[in-house]
Amino acid sequence: MLTATTCIGWDIGGAHLKVARLAADGSILAATQYATPLWQGLECLHQELEKISRAGNMREVRHGLTMTGELVDLFPDRRAGVDALLHAFVRHFPERDTAVFAGREGFLPVAGARTVAASVASANWLATALCAATRIGHGILVDVGSTTTDLIPIAAHQPCNQGWSDQERLACDELVYTGMVRTPIMALVQRVPFDGRWQNVAAEYFATAADIYRVTGELDDGADLHETADRRGKTAADSIARLARMLGAEAGIDDVHDDRWMQLATHIAEQQLLLIERSLAAVRRRMDGGSPILIIGAGAGAFLARKLARRQGCDYLAFADLFASGAASTSDVATCAPAVAVAELVRRMRLQ
Amino acid sequence: MLTATTCIGWDIGGAHLKVARLAADGSILAATQYATPLWQGLECLHQELEKISRAGNMREVRHGLTMTGELVDLFPDRRAGVDALLHAFVRHFPERDTAVFAGREGFLPVAGARTVAASVASANWLATALCAATRIGHGILVDVGSTTTDLIPIAAHQPCNQGWSDQERLACDELVYTGMVRTPIMALVQRVPFDGRWQNVAAEYFATAADIYRVTGELDDGADLHETADRRGKTAADSIARLARMLGAEAGIDDVHDDRWMQLATHIAEQQLLLIERSLAAVRRRMDGGSPILIIGAGAGAFLARKLARRQGCDYLAFADLFASGAASTSDVATCAPAVAVAELVRRMRLQ
Repeated sequence: MLTATTCIGWDIGGAHLKVARLAADGSILAATQYATPLWQGLECLHQELEKISRAGNMREVRHGLTMTGELVDLFPDRRAGVDALLHAFVRHFPERDTAVFAGREGFLPVAGARTVAASVASANWLATALCAATRIGHGILVDVGSTTTDLIPIAAHQPCNQGWSDQERLACDELVYTGMVRTPIMALVQRVPFDGRWQNVAAEYFATAADIYRVTGELDDGADLHETADRRGKTAADSIARLARMLGAEAGIDDVHDDRWMQLATHIAEQQLLLIERSLAAVRRRMDGGSPILIIGAGAGAFLARKLARRQGCDYLAFADLFASGAASTSDVATCAPAVAVAELVRRMRLQ
Repeated sequence: MLTATTCIGWDIGGAHLKVARLAADGSILAATQYATPLWQGLECLHQELEKISRAGNMREVRHGLTMTGELVDLFPDRRAGVDALLHAFVRHFPERDTAVFAGREGFLPVAGARTVAASVASANWLATALCAATRIGHGILVDVGSTTTDLIPIAAHQPCNQGWSDQERLACDELVYTGMVRTPIMALVQRVPFDGRWQNVAAEYFATAADIYRVTGELDDGADLHETADRRGKTAADSIARLARMLGAEAGIDDVHDDRWMQLATHIAEQQLLLIERSLAAVRRRMDGGSPILIIGAGAGAFLARKLARRQGCDYLAFADLFASGAASTSDVATCAPAVAVAELVRRMRLQ
C-alpha cells in the first residue's frame, strides 16, 4: 500500500553518522554526514541522534539502520558493538518503526537483529550494492569512503560478491583499506619523489589522505569532519606543513605557491589510485568478460571511481543518478550512499 | 690527565631515555633504557632523571648529552624542544659537569648548546658514528632503533655521511624511517600472503613491528617498553590477535600454535629488512668500491644488521665489541649505542 510515509536511512560508522531522508516517491530529500568519533565514547552519537530527533518531523517515518561503528576500539568485540549501537538508536527513535539491515538475512526488527549481530556488523556495503543492483544489471559499485573502498560486482541485478566477512572481502579484493580522508600517508608510500630525487618517508601519523586532496583541491567540503593528524588547521598551507613533516622537512605559509607540494600530492594520490585500480582489476577479471562494465561511483571519493572508469575505458554512473532528483546534492548522496540505500530498501519493502 | 672520573652518556629520545656509564678505562659499567614518552609531557623524564640522580654515585662524574626528543609534538619547534630538554637535564645534574653534543660543532657547555639548537637537535646518530669511527677505518654503521634506522658510512676513520638534516638524510638513504618496535604494520605492507592467498591489509594503527618480532621470537626483553597498539598485553597470543586485526580477522589464544601467524610475521619482517637493504645498497654504492665493507650493528634491532651483513657477504661487528668487556650486555650496549657513544667521546676528550 502506498502511503505518504517517508523513510530515513542511517549508517552508523566509527567516524561518521550518515543520514538520508527519502520521500514516499523515492526522491532524496536530504543526505547529511555528521562527525561521530565513536572511539571517544558514545556521547557524540547520542548528541547527534538527539538533535536530529528534535529537529525533524518524525511522524509517519520508517527507519532503516546499518552500521560499521561496532568495529571501533570502544567495544570489546563486534557483538557488544552491535548491541550498544542498537541500544543507542532506540533511545532516540521508536523501536517499532526501525528495521535493521542484517546483510544476507535482510531487514529484521531490533530484537531479532541483536541475535544475529555477526550479520548486522559491517554490512553497509551490501545495502549499497543491493540498492544499486535494483537499477543496474551489470557493473561494479566502487564506493570510496573516508577510510575504506568497497568494490562490489553486480550481475543480473544481484550483487555477486565473493566475500562476506571483512577478512574474506580483503582477500578477494572487494575491500581495499584505503580512503579519501583518514588513510595515513605512511600506508600509501614509503618513498616519494621530491625536489628532483627520491627520498624515504617518515612512518609516523603526521599526515593523512585528506591533506593530499586538500592540496590537489579535490576534497569536498564536508568530507573531512575530523581533527587533522596534528590537530592544527585545514587550510592548504596547514596540509603542506603536515606533508613536509612526512619528509623530515618544514614548510611555511609561503609554500602554498611552491609547485613541489602539488607534485608531491599528485604523486601520492596516484599511488592510492593504483591501490584501488589493482583490486578493481582483480574483481573485473572474475566477472563475465563479454559484457561491458559500468562503474557506479559512490562515497566521498566518488571522483576517484570516475577517474578509474575513464582510465579503464568503462562507462560511469554516479550513485545519485540512480534516484529521482531531490533536494540532496550529488556529492552528499555519494558520501551518504549506504544511508540512502537502507532508506530506499525500506521504502521498497513498504511498496511491495 | 688520567683521573678516576667516570663518564655518563645520555640520549634523550622521544620514546626512550638511554643511559650508559663508562669506567675511566673505557669499559662499560652499565647501559639501560627507560620508557619516557615525552609526547605525554616532561614529567616522565623528570621522574627518571630524579631516580637516577638519587641512585647513582654522582661525584667525579662527567656527563655527555645527546637527544632526538626535541622532535615530539609536545614542542612547537625543535629549538623550543632542545631548550626544554636541556633545562630538564640541569634540574637534576650540575651544568658545569655537562657537555652537550652539537654534531659538527662538537661538545659544548649547556649555555653554548642553547645557541646552536639546530646542531644539537637529532644529532645522536653522528655521536654513534664518530665513536665507531675511532675504532673502524672503513665500514657502515647500521643502527636499527625502535623507530628509525641509521646507515652511516665510515671511511678513513671518519663518518662520511652525505646528509645532515633529517630531510637530507632521508633523501640520501642514510636514514630509513623503520624500526624494530614502533613502526606500524601499515607502513610495512599493503598486501600479505595469508592462508594460501594474497590479501589486502587494514590501514589502521592496530599492530606494530614489535608484534612481528614477538611472534618470531626475535624481540629482546626490554626493547619494547611502551604500550601496545591496543593497550593490551605483550604475549605472543596478544601480538597474534593484533596482527589478525590487520587482516580483518580474529585470533584466539590457541592460535599461537597455528603456523600461519609465524609465516605472516616472517613475511612482514622480510619486507622491513628489504626496506633497510634497499637503502644500505644505495649507501654502499657511493663508497669506495675497492675496500671490503664491514657492517657495525647497533640498536635494539642489531640482529637485522647482522642478517643484512650475511646476505650481502659483508663482515659484521657488534657495536659492543668496540669496547673492553664491562658489566653491560651486548644487547644493552646495542640498544643504548648513542648514550655509550657520547660517554666514550667525553671520556676521550678528558684523556687528551
